[in-house]
Amino acid sequence: MGVVIPLEENKNKQASIQPLVDLTKPGMERVNQLILSKAGSDVQMIPEVANHLISSGGKRLRPMLTLASAALFGYQGDGDVKLSTSVEFMHTATLLHDDVVDESDLRRGKSTARMIWGNQASVLVGDYLLGQAFRMMVEVGSLEALDVLSAAASVIAEGEVLQLSVAKNMETTEDDYLSVIRAKTAALFAAAAEVGPIVAGADKAGRNALKSYGMNLGLAFQLVDDALDYGGKAVDLGKNVGDDFREGKITLPVILAYRRGTQEERAFWREAIEQGHNDDARLEKALGLITKYGALNETIARALHYGTIARDALAPLPETEWKSALMDVIDFCIARVN
Amino acid sequence: MGVVIPLEENKNKQASIQPLVDLTKPGMERVNQLILSKAGSDVQMIPEVANHLISSGGKRLRPMLTLASAALFGYQGDGDVKLSTSVEFMHTATLLHDDVVDESDLRRGKSTARMIWGNQASVLVGDYLLGQAFRMMVEVGSLEALDVLSAAASVIAEGEVLQLSVAKNMETTEDDYLSVIRAKTAALFAAAAEVGPIVAGADKAGRNALKSYGMNLGLAFQLVDDALDYGGKAVDLGKNVGDDFREGKITLPVILAYRRGTQEERAFWREAIEQGHNDDARLEKALGLITKYGALNETIARALHYGTIARDALAPLPETEWKSALMDVIDFCIARVN
Repeated sequence: MGVVIPLEENKNKQASIQPLVDLTKPGMERVNQLILSKAGSDVQMIPEVANHLISSGGKRLRPMLTLASAALFGYQGDGDVKLSTSVEFMHTATLLHDDVVDESDLRRGKSTARMIWGNQASVLVGDYLLGQAFRMMVEVGSLEALDVLSAAASVIAEGEVLQLSVAKNMETTEDDYLSVIRAKTAALFAAAAEVGPIVAGADKAGRNALKSYGMNLGLAFQLVDDALDYGGKAVDLGKNVGDDFREGKITLPVILAYRRGTQEERAFWREAIEQGHNDDARLEKALGLITKYGALNETIARALHYGTIARDALAPLPETEWKSALMDVIDFCIARVN
Repeated sequence: MGVVIPLEENKNKQASIQPLVDLTKPGMERVNQLILSKAGSDVQMIPEVANHLISSGGKRLRPMLTLASAALFGYQGDGDVKLSTSVEFMHTATLLHDDVVDESDLRRGKSTARMIWGNQASVLVGDYLLGQAFRMMVEVGSLEALDVLSAAASVIAEGEVLQLSVAKNMETTEDDYLSVIRAKTAALFAAAAEVGPIVAGADKAGRNALKSYGMNLGLAFQLVDDALDYGGKAVDLGKNVGDDFREGKITLPVILAYRRGTQEERAFWREAIEQGHNDDARLEKALGLITKYGALNETIARALHYGTIARDALAPLPETEWKSALMDVIDFCIARVN
């Protein structure tokens, strides 16, 4: 769309998710097997719908976080594989329900399950996966892990409802926005990272470190995601620049451009977001305003802020290849904006 | 609708839910308080949607079953109240999602949540209540109870998907239908009754007795519900005679009338259910065919069969007022057809 994001100073060519992918490879193979087996059912539509989404090429960042967080504390059992799979199922269930709630047609460049099998199947298969997630957690037998993950399930749903209630309202503040992304994205990252030390029997300090790492990584991840929607390449994202704009979604780039704008510009945003006047010409104008007020850079600056907190959360832990891999993920999540 | 159900021989004027209501009154007051508190949230839409459904006058049979099943084994703690509330939340979440899936406008004579707040809020508040249900189960701390209830959550969702896949298909057999109602209704009754003895520390025989009681009571309950749809009074049901017919839902009265019918009658059913030719004249004809083939009586006979199994499941347990109240519930569930 011709918008240049001048972020060269933040670009980190070393930032890569590869060390995490390599270290978790044996564990993720078992996670992937468990995903296929637990998404199975004699009711044929269930594996069809589940596998459509499961095989659609997500990075599986969340289950890798759980595996790495457990390994960081020397965990040797197999509870981490079940908890990782639970985390991925919770995420998948959320995506299935989200696509119904947002009436989305595409996810990661493929038709959403609801476009193929309908809203009904998407709601119900999501419920099934959530039930299976809880069953696996119960199998692991850690009430503390169950506590963390069930609390996350409530908070995620609460965040989604909050998002509905601020939808298309240009008076949404940055704080409102942060509450939404904290609940709907960061809470699951935090839980995914916290159950690792829990299952490994780590102390409270270890749990808190990983929880804080996950929460702040999640915030950075979502901030970058929301920036990418106004500056990324469709082919990388599986979505098109401006999807959030066309859906009237209130994200930080919009909030900042609105608040920093003139009276006339604010009227433009209200018409676009609240009244749905969001054709391509208006998207071009929106991108121009976002650039004019440095709203993308500012959004990335916020992501860097949370990335720093995530980094400091892990700092006191011993230097291992696992820790190094988790540190690299922070840079990776932020650097994908380029 | 002018259809007389000749069930006088099954009518039991003593059958009442009142003994159960009276015995569980102190416990249910605490359940009701917990429902209000756990359906709360700073996100205003959550208590609004939740309370709309919660206050709409359901009997709360499931949480009463949990309280009574725990009391039957002399339980004295407060875990039963939390588990009862979890069970009711699981049920409420299912109703919220069902109304979206079935595109229902009315439930118990009131507008459904989705008609007032939309499908989005119904899906998400259902998810929230499910999350809260699991948090309460975790608070109780019984992994066995968690196992039973999380398995039920998966099975319920699986049953709903199965129902989707047999929907509007007149070749559905009685066995298919039984699989659906076993999963979508009876599994939660079974879990509600089984977690009572679990939390009370009863032995395996006690658990199995209550699980079998709940499962068979649930089957009888749903069979009667499906019979009522072709013979009840709208004012009692909060729904209208023929709702299932108009929705093309395959229930046992329809399956039996279809299988016992002539070629021409079977063609009528296919047109009505599969192709949606279901105006009032056709409903009258359907009711006539159901009467002609004794399909309602036969459905009630099936309910009596499961009721007998439920009764025998409890038989070996000591005679107490709790047991007597649970026995009465069987008759009550079946007798409401008159």
